[in-house]
Amino acid sequence: MDSSEPTSQPKRHAELPGPPPEAGALPHVVIVGAGFGGLEAAKALAGAPIRLTLVDRHNHHLFQPLLYQVASATLSPADIAAPIRHILRGQANLEVLLGEVVRVDPAGRSLRLAEGRSLDFDFLILATGASHSYFGHEDWAEHAPGLKTLEDALEIRRRFLLSFERAERETDPALRRALLTYVVIGGGPTGVELAGTLMEMARLTLPREFRHIRADRARVVLVEGGPRVLPAFAPELSEQARLSLARIGVEVRLGQPVTGLDAEGVTTGGERIAARTLIWAAGVAASALGRDLGAALDRSGRIRVAPDLSLPGSAHVFVIGDLAACAQDGGVLPGLAPVAIQQGRQAAAAIRARLAGMAPAPFRFRDRGMMATIGRGAAIAQWGRWQLSGGLAWFAWLFIHLMLLVGFRNRQAVFMEWLFAYLTTQRRARLILGGPRAPGG
Amino acid sequence: MDSSEPTSQPKRHAELPGPPPEAGALPHVVIVGAGFGGLEAAKALAGAPIRLTLVDRHNHHLFQPLLYQVASATLSPADIAAPIRHILRGQANLEVLLGEVVRVDPAGRSLRLAEGRSLDFDFLILATGASHSYFGHEDWAEHAPGLKTLEDALEIRRRFLLSFERAERETDPALRRALLTYVVIGGGPTGVELAGTLMEMARLTLPREFRHIRADRARVVLVEGGPRVLPAFAPELSEQARLSLARIGVEVRLGQPVTGLDAEGVTTGGERIAARTLIWAAGVAASALGRDLGAALDRSGRIRVAPDLSLPGSAHVFVIGDLAACAQDGGVLPGLAPVAIQQGRQAAAAIRARLAGMAPAPFRFRDRGMMATIGRGAAIAQWGRWQLSGGLAWFAWLFIHLMLLVGFRNRQAVFMEWLFAYLTTQRRARLILGGPRAPGG
Repeated sequence: MDSSEPTSQPKRHAELPGPPPEAGALPHVVIVGAGFGGLEAAKALAGAPIRLTLVDRHNHHLFQPLLYQVASATLSPADIAAPIRHILRGQANLEVLLGEVVRVDPAGRSLRLAEGRSLDFDFLILATGASHSYFGHEDWAEHAPGLKTLEDALEIRRRFLLSFERAERETDPALRRALLTYVVIGGGPTGVELAGTLMEMARLTLPREFRHIRADRARVVLVEGGPRVLPAFAPELSEQARLSLARIGVEVRLGQPVTGLDAEGVTTGGERIAARTLIWAAGVAASALGRDLGAALDRSGRIRVAPDLSLPGSAHVFVIGDLAACAQDGGVLPGLAPVAIQQGRQAAAAIRARLAGMAPAPFRFRDRGMMATIGRGAAIAQWGRWQLSGGLAWFAWLFIHLMLLVGFRNRQAVFMEWLFAYLTTQRRARLILGGPRAPGG
Repeated sequence: MDSSEPTSQPKRHAELPGPPPEAGALPHVVIVGAGFGGLEAAKALAGAPIRLTLVDRHNHHLFQPLLYQVASATLSPADIAAPIRHILRGQANLEVLLGEVVRVDPAGRSLRLAEGRSLDFDFLILATGASHSYFGHEDWAEHAPGLKTLEDALEIRRRFLLSFERAERETDPALRRALLTYVVIGGGPTGVELAGTLMEMARLTLPREFRHIRADRARVVLVEGGPRVLPAFAPELSEQARLSLARIGVEVRLGQPVTGLDAEGVTTGGERIAARTLIWAAGVAASALGRDLGAALDRSGRIRVAPDLSLPGSAHVFVIGDLAACAQDGGVLPGLAPVAIQQGRQAAAAIRARLAGMAPAPFRFRDRGMMATIGRGAAIAQWGRWQLSGGLAWFAWLFIHLMLLVGFRNRQAVFMEWLFAYLTTQRRARLILGGPRAPGG
């Protein structure tokens, strides 16, 4: 046993409303972040002899794989998000706290919330995820928003829909062209899915509704610095995806990193593309919380964790999901939902083992396959050496994503939206909300 | 014929993308505002030998009667709004323009858009609606938002949901009480519907999900300066509504105008109510556009129109909906959707009459009844001397509002949300999005 083993007298989180008296003697486990990893860890700790606090800065758990469909006006935010406290309402040993954690002190076993309060813990699971990295060009962020939160998705939806409205009333042909040019930077799943769905919207949903522009002549450019799209998949599937994108009209540029970016376009491969709508799907940076822990970080700011997912030197702190750099088979596991979910389960098991006086088992990710969709009727999927593409992969994608959504009602609502969108090519959430509306810039 | 009759050589709206050449000789009709009145006028002008431009500062038509259900997390914005250009996509003589009109020159037959462009017209229909009036206390607006737009509804939803989250982590009992006190100011339909639905949410939807507060003990206060709620209805129905509100726990205070209001509560009837969530449903002010027209205004800033709904002295300009003060039977018509819809149809008919060289008929509103809902299973309705309240009125309300929604898919989606909410007491859109999240103030 190391010195960070929980003591028999757990601290109380003094400044917050106190726990019921009988709970005071139980070890306090805090989970920060209610994404796929944090939520799974919380569920896996149901019934454990602990007090459990789940802290998140949002009130909702977000099903990120479908976020691009909010950005493209197919789904509403409520279709892919549910209140965390509603999901976990039946779990007696748990409370949910809306708040932002700004500092963690592993040795002192406490963390600090943005409003100045602090929270003590016996065990901690850090699952705060990742945000965007602009590779040192932080000024690019305002021109090319990324897609991580519902707010991001609504902002991308707003910019995309607004560009057509501005083009409709623009008289300068060059500016009109720039307004109808969309550049998605990054050829990972988010970039591919966004480019595909934006192109389809321009070609199928909008055309008959404008008088001065041809929405179906909009130009969507997908820029990828590496040699292929969807590099996590087998090369043949990447090529399938590239062909599917090209077939619906997306211009795919491979091996061309973006070297310049401003409000009026991007520079890539030595060429300037005039475009008023830019979307960033390229870089990922782990949540800043990791930086202050004194742990070793990888290039993306992820924390290099021990084989049992604990923070090296702090066996009572676990790091999971996109915040963790977890080595396996000579590589590092990618930031995917299945990895986070399995790690959440593992961290919960590790805490249960510790409470029982046993040593946690090392984590091992079991790959159950991955998939990405390119547009109407096209997707790719890969399970180990099995590969699938085309219509069947697309149906599998639809079915699996429906089943993974939280709640019967959300599944039913998303199914209806998809059916409606497929049959009519319409999208129901074409709303321009908030933000500056009018100016042509 | 007066001097403002359209000339045979209509002007072209020079700075915007030009109309197709063959359309140049047609009279240009501009409608400003795509609410109930403007949209109806546009539809009623389908097939007319005109060029028609519909200008709105939002890209969507909003079904305002259900806006309070977005504020109370039952419906999503996309359920009650649809893109204007999608609704009118099949109308060949029409184009839709996203833009904000800042000035109208009736004599010069032109109007100016916010981005500096101008638009000439032969006929104009002004249907820009109303916003809130704080009766000279404009500083109250930031503390007590009103409910007119989707953005307003999302802001009220955010404040309401956030107040429970803050109360859950608050240790000071007085502050916690203030966080769980909700004051709705104004006893018209919006105030009554909001108060009822907020109370139900606190009592039915939220209770099991918090550990430190009793959501069902939240206090909802409805403050009305006049002697009864829903004053447009018969006194017996007002009393029914008051009883229904009291039965579900809403505290109704009649005859008590608000005399003070700040971030921490309101003063009414000489008493201070400490409350952190205030909602304004009291005053209505017509859109500011009316002020510059040189026309006579009523107390709410509405334009006093001629019997044919034209602007006195400018027979080619029509004013409809909440912007118009239209006298009938010794009173002035209220700002209700049915009035706006009938006026929209009338303004379209007046323009068609003028184009045919005939004089427009005077407008007469036909009252087809009105209704308001108080909560689960309770509503009141009135058709002339017929009155209805209770469960049957509620079913009639549900059915009629479903049928009035634009689009089969929206009807189907709203029906499913209502069924789900009724059967489970859950609401699917409980998302806190945007705005400041953390601080306890």
